[in-house]
Amino acid sequence: MTRVLILGGGGMVGQKLAHALMDEGLPGAEPLVITLHDLGFPEEGADIPDKRVGNLANIAEGAALAAERFDVIYQLASVVSGEAEMDFDKGWQTNLWPMWHFLEALRAQHRASGGSYRPKVIFTSSIAVFGGPYPEIIPDDFATSPQTSYGAQKAACELLVQDFSRKGFIEGMSLRLPTICVRPGKPNLASSSFFSGIIRDPLNGEDAQLPVPDWVRHWHASPRSAAGFLRHAATLDHAQLEGRTALNLPGISCTVAEQIEALRDVAGADVAARIKPLLDDRIMNIVKGWPTAFDPARARALGFTAEGSFREIIETYIADDLPLDTRQS
Amino acid sequence: MTRVLILGGGGMVGQKLAHALMDEGLPGAEPLVITLHDLGFPEEGADIPDKRVGNLANIAEGAALAAERFDVIYQLASVVSGEAEMDFDKGWQTNLWPMWHFLEALRAQHRASGGSYRPKVIFTSSIAVFGGPYPEIIPDDFATSPQTSYGAQKAACELLVQDFSRKGFIEGMSLRLPTICVRPGKPNLASSSFFSGIIRDPLNGEDAQLPVPDWVRHWHASPRSAAGFLRHAATLDHAQLEGRTALNLPGISCTVAEQIEALRDVAGADVAARIKPLLDDRIMNIVKGWPTAFDPARARALGFTAEGSFREIIETYIADDLPLDTRQS
Repeated sequence: MTRVLILGGGGMVGQKLAHALMDEGLPGAEPLVITLHDLGFPEEGADIPDKRVGNLANIAEGAALAAERFDVIYQLASVVSGEAEMDFDKGWQTNLWPMWHFLEALRAQHRASGGSYRPKVIFTSSIAVFGGPYPEIIPDDFATSPQTSYGAQKAACELLVQDFSRKGFIEGMSLRLPTICVRPGKPNLASSSFFSGIIRDPLNGEDAQLPVPDWVRHWHASPRSAAGFLRHAATLDHAQLEGRTALNLPGISCTVAEQIEALRDVAGADVAARIKPLLDDRIMNIVKGWPTAFDPARARALGFTAEGSFREIIETYIADDLPLDTRQS
Repeated sequence: MTRVLILGGGGMVGQKLAHALMDEGLPGAEPLVITLHDLGFPEEGADIPDKRVGNLANIAEGAALAAERFDVIYQLASVVSGEAEMDFDKGWQTNLWPMWHFLEALRAQHRASGGSYRPKVIFTSSIAVFGGPYPEIIPDDFATSPQTSYGAQKAACELLVQDFSRKGFIEGMSLRLPTICVRPGKPNLASSSFFSGIIRDPLNGEDAQLPVPDWVRHWHASPRSAAGFLRHAATLDHAQLEGRTALNLPGISCTVAEQIEALRDVAGADVAARIKPLLDDRIMNIVKGWPTAFDPARARALGFTAEGSFREIIETYIADDLPLDTRQS
């Protein structure tokens, strides 16, 4: 029996991961017992009995979870980019300090076990750890120089994960997720939310605002790929990371114009016409600092895979989430 | 009147900086009033009346210092690399958390001033923020992937300095100092201490242990250059950093064999013969993860300069520190 904890398990990616783990398990692992933890859970969410409502910012709560000695721990909980940028205190107090205290609690368990307890800890980082100027294609050894508080918090957590892993307290890994697109459901406060909105909302019969020029290029992967990355990460031998525990992941680099073109191809010109340009300087100021294309050679060599085209990303959304979204709206 | 605070002002670099500021001031600044802060001060140290004995790990003490609203704040205080590696708790509790609380205290002063108080904060980071594998020459946009706790702590502080600066609370900068060589005085617990010892001790008539093979290549600058970097940093317009507040600095890349050869050239074969190879796996395991050569193009363009050869570094030591060391020994 392999015991899996998903922190942030009530969120969109957490739910996708929970479903994927329930349906497919983990290759090479024993049957899974899954625990979800979050501030709350969706009503029609994954059918997992062990759902804990709580807040990791409560240090004692993190310590109590650590004391259960899960085998695999996914840490997906965070304040999103737009919110962390607007509320400096909330961003740092949510996205960095609870992670430190939770890692310290895992280290205490490692010590109490005489060194035998060393959980896999898979942290969802983000391409927001990067800052420009960028080369056309970003290599795996490119500097992190975040231009948002969210990115700085993710990068700081990566450093903690790497050092706690290097010391042997955990087997940690940080996955720098591409922007997840197409997100089902309602928009969130992430500054990247519109990248999903301009596909999802027209497919659901609604207009969508486009707050940036259509030449903006960005780096995307589907929710299905995100869940796939997270599952795959748990199957790796930690030694394969060779001490560099943060990974740039595969994705699709395309412009907003190419996104729109793919939507037109898949769903027709009428649907694509529901996208309404309305520039938003606040969003554009954040987005313009983001990276646009990667060569994720290490992750590919380690077996991580994603979609091959943005059209495929749209088709994944239609297959996995469109009926659900339509039902919700 | 420009008020300067040097945290870690009792240390070797802090003292060099204090002397340099007393002797030469800051170009373009008003006359300086200097305050030093540290756990203690050398008896024959810089003749500065305002020396505060204290500990930044005391959060209230950092807040009280912040409330004095210094114009320029140098943050040089830290546990060194070897000690941070041996004592995980002490490293993180000394090298990261006090920095966070001190920056928060400066932010509170910024807010209390209605936004007008925005001190220059110059943080001494280190090339220990890097981890291999490395290209032959490391460019300015190379990834930080620290392989020591010390490096992880410095990299995490860099992220804080950059985000607090981006938000306009401070005008911060992180200087990734080369290994400072030749350090005068006694060896310290830094894993890099021997790079100085093999030059200093023979010049002072003593044998020196060399714990690594002589093909080890490393990146050096003199204490005089370190003080020069720190002085120069305070004269820059913050906008020149273009949001990337961590800088790789100029230095000399050479092997231990080249260090020894330069010592032989300057002081003769008898002096160089006082270097005794005695491999130390613990030191070698740390040193082998360190970078060896940089192209610090940004720092050079911003006017930072260092020595042109390792021979010059030895000559700087002889000119600045040898009589003092001989007197001490």
